[in-house]
Amino acid sequence: MKESVFDAFFAPEAIVLFGSVKAGKIGYEILKSIREGGYEGKVYPINPGGGEVIGYPVYRSLDEVPEKADLAVISLPQRAVAETIVECGRQGIRAVIIISSGFSEVGNDQAEKELVKAAQAWGIRLIGPNCAGLMNPWRRHFPSIEVRALPGHTAFITQSGALGGATLGWAEERGFGFSKFVSYGNRCDVGDTELLSYLADDPETRVIVLYIEGIDRGREFLRAAREASLKKPLIAIKSGRTRAGQRAASSHTGTLAGVDEIYNAAFRKAGIIRVEGIEEMFDLCQAFSECPLPAGNRVAIITNSGGPGILAADKAESLGLNVAEPSSSLRDALKPSLSPHSSLKNPIDLTVESGYEEYRLAVEKALLEYDAAIVINVATPYLDSNGIARGIIDAAQKARKPVVTNFMAGRIVREAIGILKEAGLVNLATGERCSFVLSKLLERSKALGRIPVSLLDSCIPHRQNSLRERRFSGGFPLHSLIEKAKEDNPHLLEPEALRLLHDYGIPVPRHRWARTEEEAVEAAEAMGLPVVLKVVSPDILHKTDLGGVALPLQDRNDVAKAFTRLISLGQDGKRIEGVLVTPFQSHDIELLAGMVRDAQFGPVITVGLGGIWVEILGDAVYGIAPLSIEESEEMIRSIRAYPLLLGLRGKKGADLRALGELLVRLSRMALAESAIREIDLNPIFPLERGFFIADARIIL
Amino acid sequence: MKESVFDAFFAPEAIVLFGSVKAGKIGYEILKSIREGGYEGKVYPINPGGGEVIGYPVYRSLDEVPEKADLAVISLPQRAVAETIVECGRQGIRAVIIISSGFSEVGNDQAEKELVKAAQAWGIRLIGPNCAGLMNPWRRHFPSIEVRALPGHTAFITQSGALGGATLGWAEERGFGFSKFVSYGNRCDVGDTELLSYLADDPETRVIVLYIEGIDRGREFLRAAREASLKKPLIAIKSGRTRAGQRAASSHTGTLAGVDEIYNAAFRKAGIIRVEGIEEMFDLCQAFSECPLPAGNRVAIITNSGGPGILAADKAESLGLNVAEPSSSLRDALKPSLSPHSSLKNPIDLTVESGYEEYRLAVEKALLEYDAAIVINVATPYLDSNGIARGIIDAAQKARKPVVTNFMAGRIVREAIGILKEAGLVNLATGERCSFVLSKLLERSKALGRIPVSLLDSCIPHRQNSLRERRFSGGFPLHSLIEKAKEDNPHLLEPEALRLLHDYGIPVPRHRWARTEEEAVEAAEAMGLPVVLKVVSPDILHKTDLGGVALPLQDRNDVAKAFTRLISLGQDGKRIEGVLVTPFQSHDIELLAGMVRDAQFGPVITVGLGGIWVEILGDAVYGIAPLSIEESEEMIRSIRAYPLLLGLRGKKGADLRALGELLVRLSRMALAESAIREIDLNPIFPLERGFFIADARIIL
Repeated sequence: MKESVFDAFFAPEAIVLFGSVKAGKIGYEILKSIREGGYEGKVYPINPGGGEVIGYPVYRSLDEVPEKADLAVISLPQRAVAETIVECGRQGIRAVIIISSGFSEVGNDQAEKELVKAAQAWGIRLIGPNCAGLMNPWRRHFPSIEVRALPGHTAFITQSGALGGATLGWAEERGFGFSKFVSYGNRCDVGDTELLSYLADDPETRVIVLYIEGIDRGREFLRAAREASLKKPLIAIKSGRTRAGQRAASSHTGTLAGVDEIYNAAFRKAGIIRVEGIEEMFDLCQAFSECPLPAGNRVAIITNSGGPGILAADKAESLGLNVAEPSSSLRDALKPSLSPHSSLKNPIDLTVESGYEEYRLAVEKALLEYDAAIVINVATPYLDSNGIARGIIDAAQKARKPVVTNFMAGRIVREAIGILKEAGLVNLATGERCSFVLSKLLERSKALGRIPVSLLDSCIPHRQNSLRERRFSGGFPLHSLIEKAKEDNPHLLEPEALRLLHDYGIPVPRHRWARTEEEAVEAAEAMGLPVVLKVVSPDILHKTDLGGVALPLQDRNDVAKAFTRLISLGQDGKRIEGVLVTPFQSHDIELLAGMVRDAQFGPVITVGLGGIWVEILGDAVYGIAPLSIEESEEMIRSIRAYPLLLGLRGKKGADLRALGELLVRLSRMALAESAIREIDLNPIFPLERGFFIADARIIL
Repeated sequence: MKESVFDAFFAPEAIVLFGSVKAGKIGYEILKSIREGGYEGKVYPINPGGGEVIGYPVYRSLDEVPEKADLAVISLPQRAVAETIVECGRQGIRAVIIISSGFSEVGNDQAEKELVKAAQAWGIRLIGPNCAGLMNPWRRHFPSIEVRALPGHTAFITQSGALGGATLGWAEERGFGFSKFVSYGNRCDVGDTELLSYLADDPETRVIVLYIEGIDRGREFLRAAREASLKKPLIAIKSGRTRAGQRAASSHTGTLAGVDEIYNAAFRKAGIIRVEGIEEMFDLCQAFSECPLPAGNRVAIITNSGGPGILAADKAESLGLNVAEPSSSLRDALKPSLSPHSSLKNPIDLTVESGYEEYRLAVEKALLEYDAAIVINVATPYLDSNGIARGIIDAAQKARKPVVTNFMAGRIVREAIGILKEAGLVNLATGERCSFVLSKLLERSKALGRIPVSLLDSCIPHRQNSLRERRFSGGFPLHSLIEKAKEDNPHLLEPEALRLLHDYGIPVPRHRWARTEEEAVEAAEAMGLPVVLKVVSPDILHKTDLGGVALPLQDRNDVAKAFTRLISLGQDGKRIEGVLVTPFQSHDIELLAGMVRDAQFGPVITVGLGGIWVEILGDAVYGIAPLSIEESEEMIRSIRAYPLLLGLRGKKGADLRALGELLVRLSRMALAESAIREIDLNPIFPLERGFFIADARIIL
């Protein structure tokens, strides 16, 4: 018996297999897979029919099995699964894989709940149901119905068994191996979160890949992923991006796919690298398994042919790599040994007249001044590609910098690619793909230097403490303000919203809640004209649309008239609770900041261009709360309009630190006040010092 | 002897081959390729050494050759090439391929000019030099050093011989064939333009692919490409997008890569489909060779596995395909025959329990209401993928709509993919790639209905005529205005620029060129205050930066003061020629329109967001002059800020027709007035009726 339940799943000493083992049945396929995979432990098929199958005696019941197994695999009809779990519990089995389907994926949530209940009662952990099983190729352990994986260094966790199977098929064709494979199907118990923690410490695993359709317990997932990503690269394929994709996801697994932008923000926070599909994934897994991380973004592209070198260079630059010119000393070092037709720019074009020595020299010298190299060999039938491969290997092994190769194409380079692979070099199908993987190696290299350890955990208590202090010292019962508002209104009145923001340390404009014309005029004169008047009403959320805003008001008379007009908006029965008076301010740049609460990841903070630009340009970025000041500033830097904030054409720049602080505080407030559903500060005018929140909406 | 010189290149009856035919030499490789390829005509190697090689007698000179050849292939050292061309000319050969290098690609432009001179003197056409030769697999004609192509329906024209070779290597691995292959190297004579015209009428060619690093004679190329694209799909891989890529391109072939955006505009105009790399290219060639074009954008995705279906749906929607829900009648038609766990949304998930009949039925019924289908089969070892393939074939052959399949993965679907291919169905590596090719089939389908035949040709005379009429009837000597200005100034003065725009039918604001304070005041009052005053000076192009603009001026006094200040800008010796008075206007949306003159494609018109947004958002689109009104309106629709022009939040929309007309007229003016180098109308305020050009610059 294994101590950790994950050891029981991935390296059991004895397995019991429940289900029909007649040829063609899934139970039979699993048994065959276990056997043909070369499993070294014991396997006990269990079926009331008894008999023998492919050399194994079939036991009529679990009681008959002569030893204690540590893993059970169940491929029985749906109705028999729950009772089998109980049987396993009685016999001390703690790890169960349920291949059987017919549970929540077809709407039968009740049956699935019963599985979980039975398992919890017996301290059993479940993988599945409706899954394709798992594999540990290093242990020759294949309780699965899919193509058996070769041993390798990539762990693959998949929500879709079929996609997992397809990936295994592809991998087999390419000789690509896996350290672990898990299809968790409906994920009624063990899911990504725990698997990530386990695989992060698994010695055979160098890279972890997740295929995700939807996540539950999003914040737990984030925490586990963040920790794992500090140890190993995490790559995710997340489907369900667009409208049609999301619809299919909800019908397929019963999980609700989140808004794609929010997933991106969550992945960023957790250090997960998102890829578009299986091909990118394979490329990255190879690179992360074999390549050292680059210390900078300078890439040398070495080629014997112009065209493919250019395509690689184009891609590299578009991904933020620096395809810098070689130094004059590098050029001097290369010139004497190369063909006179060589181009000593970058790409460095060695021309078709180069072999072992030219490649070796060029790669070796280039890696003295570049952080990484892409080496391309466009072969012709009469070229010694094996020699070129050896030249690259000899140079790369000296350098301890990432070198990715692209030998093209087909039959004439097959042997050379084998030589490269043997030496631990990664060869990809095109130079563009080489650029892509280098950009991701660089991204990870940056991230490892940047993700603060335990950021989420350290942030939350800190925030809560400081808030509690403030509440009691300031004496203002924030929560009760919200409680009170909730009774009647779906949103805070604007003066309440400003008060709440203020109490979370967010600077708000001077303002006064005026109930009478006299109060309004007096407030306007006190704060200095021109001013803005806005109607305050629990029944009016979109004030502008209803004529509920009057601006700019230049004198007493304007203010008095505006007051009368705004109050008259109550004629049709809307409750009017006076007006809000604030100074008038305008600005040619309008920002917005806000919060939406995601079902999986909790409060998500957004910042972007405001005003009319919101809808047109969608220039907004998202971040999962809580935000550190570094994360907030990074968000601001990544909005498209960022250069505007730096001050163009002689204008002064905006106060970026203040805007960063605003996001940090919004994120804390959103975490603390869970009754707030949405915050919308729009527009915000960025000032040379601070900012001016021209409108604030808080929805409960 | 062949009548057309292209027939002599691609289907010669006899070939002479100049060059060393010693084993290992390029001449030897070419001879071997011709022989092993199974060429049925005569081949005469020529080398002063004589003798015999791989069964061919070697002739000591061209004179000794017993018959008239129609094609010569030259693989001699550079210095011997020109005289050999003369020899060929004397013997009546009119088609010559020059494999030899050492010409303009290494800076030896003079030697290349001599080739061209010799060829022109004898009426000879050249392909090369510095090229990899050509192939016509349908004639078993392989005068080339590269991997021999299988016969197929894609013609491949490549500027880079090496990239061409790599493509052939890939193709061989995939069993992908070609109708023609041409590597034209330095393109000293025959280039894309003529090859396009030839291949457009070549019966074996269904798709034409171009690998381009740079283009010369851009407008000729456009005209040939546009005509060819009406007959066959044209696909281009254009390298040299980013900074590094462009640098390499200029060192590689001596051609200057144009600005990427301009290439995109040119390709759009010519109906060329641009792809990123070789993999996309292969996918598209297969689809264009085999699939009918869709009549609309509704795509059914039929799968037996959720995950891959979702990924395909995501991609499809992101590319503008419509992954619409099935109608209830389609659902009703399918439901009785499918597994109860099937999902009848889109993707239609048949589940793993489906085979021949389920796939046949689903594809057949879906194609009754969708324009195209993506059919995915994620195989497991125990699934009958061959049966599924046959089901899809039986349904697809009935429908005459595009059906693209994705069978995954590896060994277990190899046979089924063969069955699909045999039946003329296209199988791609992922569902996402299926979405990509369908989006491009759709694009072509749209383009064929939309590209007006001979647009360029019909536009130019029309424009010139109408302008000539206008000039002479209006009596205003436009050209002389520019001629006059050019003498002293690199740009027109703003009043001159407005005059020029006006005379090309572009509405400009009321304005007056005032030389005295009195004139300025009088003009201001005549056109109505407030007004703007701008300094007029041949020495001041960027007026705002120097304080050369005064606005808004509310009364006579303001105008008088502003006049004095603006005139004083001449204190440091700048020539001041009075001020321009125009009405003051402001607007929250600022557009720009302009023109730059590209060395290859001539005048390129641009439109986009103006003001501070130009630099930040780069929201500009480009179009090659002349523009039709349809093209202009399409450009305006494709700027990101387009929704703003439709009128947001109750605001009135802009006059899109007037903006479209502006671009049309700008494009005509730019073609007619070749002395204009650049036009910059920025900002332009889009109005409910017409527009207001607030600033105009015309650079000569």
